[in-house]
Amino acid sequence: MKIVVLKFGGTSVGSIDKIKKVAQIIGNHKKKKFKVIVVSSAMSGVTNELVKKSREISGNFSNEEYDVLLSTGEQIACSLIAGRLNHIGFKSRSWLSWQIPIITTGLHKNSRINKINKKKIIRYLNEGGIPIITGFQGINKEERITTIGRGGSDASAIMLAKFFKAKKCIIYTDVEGVYTTDPRKLTKAKKIKVISYEEMLEMASLGAKVMQPVSIQDARLNRIDIEVKSSFINKPGTLITKRSNIFNHKIITGISSTQNDSKVSLIGVRDKPGIAASIFKPLSKNSINVDMVVQNISANGKETDLTFTIKTDDLNKTTKIIRANKSIKFRKLLLKKDVAKISIIGVGMVATPGVTFRMFQTLANEKINIQVISTSEIKISVLIDKKNIKKALAALHKEFKLDN
Amino acid sequence: MKIVVLKFGGTSVGSIDKIKKVAQIIGNHKKKKFKVIVVSSAMSGVTNELVKKSREISGNFSNEEYDVLLSTGEQIACSLIAGRLNHIGFKSRSWLSWQIPIITTGLHKNSRINKINKKKIIRYLNEGGIPIITGFQGINKEERITTIGRGGSDASAIMLAKFFKAKKCIIYTDVEGVYTTDPRKLTKAKKIKVISYEEMLEMASLGAKVMQPVSIQDARLNRIDIEVKSSFINKPGTLITKRSNIFNHKIITGISSTQNDSKVSLIGVRDKPGIAASIFKPLSKNSINVDMVVQNISANGKETDLTFTIKTDDLNKTTKIIRANKSIKFRKLLLKKDVAKISIIGVGMVATPGVTFRMFQTLANEKINIQVISTSEIKISVLIDKKNIKKALAALHKEFKLDN
Repeated sequence: MKIVVLKFGGTSVGSIDKIKKVAQIIGNHKKKKFKVIVVSSAMSGVTNELVKKSREISGNFSNEEYDVLLSTGEQIACSLIAGRLNHIGFKSRSWLSWQIPIITTGLHKNSRINKINKKKIIRYLNEGGIPIITGFQGINKEERITTIGRGGSDASAIMLAKFFKAKKCIIYTDVEGVYTTDPRKLTKAKKIKVISYEEMLEMASLGAKVMQPVSIQDARLNRIDIEVKSSFINKPGTLITKRSNIFNHKIITGISSTQNDSKVSLIGVRDKPGIAASIFKPLSKNSINVDMVVQNISANGKETDLTFTIKTDDLNKTTKIIRANKSIKFRKLLLKKDVAKISIIGVGMVATPGVTFRMFQTLANEKINIQVISTSEIKISVLIDKKNIKKALAALHKEFKLDN
Repeated sequence: MKIVVLKFGGTSVGSIDKIKKVAQIIGNHKKKKFKVIVVSSAMSGVTNELVKKSREISGNFSNEEYDVLLSTGEQIACSLIAGRLNHIGFKSRSWLSWQIPIITTGLHKNSRINKINKKKIIRYLNEGGIPIITGFQGINKEERITTIGRGGSDASAIMLAKFFKAKKCIIYTDVEGVYTTDPRKLTKAKKIKVISYEEMLEMASLGAKVMQPVSIQDARLNRIDIEVKSSFINKPGTLITKRSNIFNHKIITGISSTQNDSKVSLIGVRDKPGIAASIFKPLSKNSINVDMVVQNISANGKETDLTFTIKTDDLNKTTKIIRANKSIKFRKLLLKKDVAKISIIGVGMVATPGVTFRMFQTLANEKINIQVISTSEIKISVLIDKKNIKKALAALHKEFKLDN
């Protein structure tokens, strides 16, 4: 059975006219003799509206009821899509997570899909039906509605693709695919035709908003090809697949940048074993994510400088925690908000020597100072002044031949 | 176990502030050591908004998906009520119809509650919880969401009261109770303290919008006391109960009037057996409800005049059907839109001679001509010119001592 999973995001079903368009897209897949499973998000704006209501009811609104409340968003979208498919002559119906059921584990507001009962859906597919399944939700073993924390409806789509052994999962969204870099920051950005899971994971982690890292990781583990494409424009999107499916690698596939980072430097820290841990442990406990870290070797063996980056949103909390921690001795605390992280990503760099040098040289030619460096097998990130971000993006995009 | 069922209508939960108020009301019942079962409608406006969406998707929207769509309205309201009760310190949760389950029979959009599984709710009540149950809906034996055609959430509340053997069902709404007549038409209208099921049935059938006749009938058959009261003002409402619970009957309990009736007269109909049936059968087939009927005795045994009333909305359809029916011979078709039906209702009239005479005399004194008459055991209705409606109401209200 050739199954394809189609997932529609909130903007794709954001109005009645868009839902009509979406029904056409689904119908076209069905006509191509695929067995089609559809997953939908809530119409854009609906979820925010529901969250707002819950906050007005209570600043500490029940997690259980939050899930009951929010799950109505997808239910509405799915009934409208199914209703439209009926209208244009297709057999289709909404399937709510309790009707299938989709079983989750974990806490309310932050569950994970554990099991999907395939029986009813398989039967329905064999009858020629198109099931429209509510994304972002499931039920737990107490038969209460749960919502999926990270990944949302994307995670639902990937898990459906996994359980039904779909060859492909198409993520319909409001962008045409994944770009070499953010087109709003660099007009020369190009749509990527094909990208490996690993590169996409880095891109997503570094701020490409197309998909949540957790869903890409699930797809990678289950070898599900993902195509990200626009629901508004009928053009090929970006295929996310395993490395061995990709030929003609460029050295660098994409460039990410984030501007909501801040740099924290502790100057003159007493250098003793475990000092970094004693600084980072309370931050971790408070859900503050420390990103890049650099520690200078101390010349005299007694003092060191420690620099790290965090999200700017966490800056106040971070400084409070550090100042409150009397076990950390340091001479000065330096904070810098106007920094940006720029990252080049590509599996090609593994086999290509000198990529790091080319990156640094390119920035040096533009007189851009590098403040912190962090690397992985397929990624090099540097921290620079925020004011240089556009110049850096343009130079690197050109250097690594992404302009065309 | 002393159970009370509280039902909140759409206007009672029409805003976040109103839901907070409703949670207080529920909490107060709980504090009085009652086991409280709550049923809620959708927040006012929400259902209409959803219906509008379905119509924009298709002029012939799927009945199955319509029920899936509309059921979200009550789900939202129930989660917010439960969340608010949690906030103010009560153990409470939403119960969706599939979680209980509430089983319905009949067609989509027009189902009836057949069975309510009590086990989980009883256990939850015994744990001290307040279940907030979605009104207006259930699931059928195929496990699809259904909605209740007539009676809506009132019907859900009455059926819950029946299955859980509740002593009382309180219908919270936006009016203070049932009035002797519509206060918008007669400022002297008084709230009725207690009224029998039978009288309330007549009042409801004749246009009092407080409750649907079908729900009153269900309450009557199951001997469930209903109190209709305001969720905004803390005052006793109207008790609807069996006749034997009522002392000090007035002769007349209430006066109803409707203004959306039209009168149709067929003049010079060939008088033969079955003529009335041949006129009314096609109307009935087209769901046109014929209300009052009067047929003059023909003097010559050959011709008769037939007059009946229908809703004005059905007037065009009715005349088309009559003109299209070639088997009916008549000389003239007279239509009159500006008529109104005024009805006096009271179980007291059974034991009191001369009520009909007093009604006719009162209208005659006001020089109001009676066009059609229709009576039942506890009701007398007359058709009059619409322009006389206020005058007639005031005179009858006074005559039957309802002014005080």
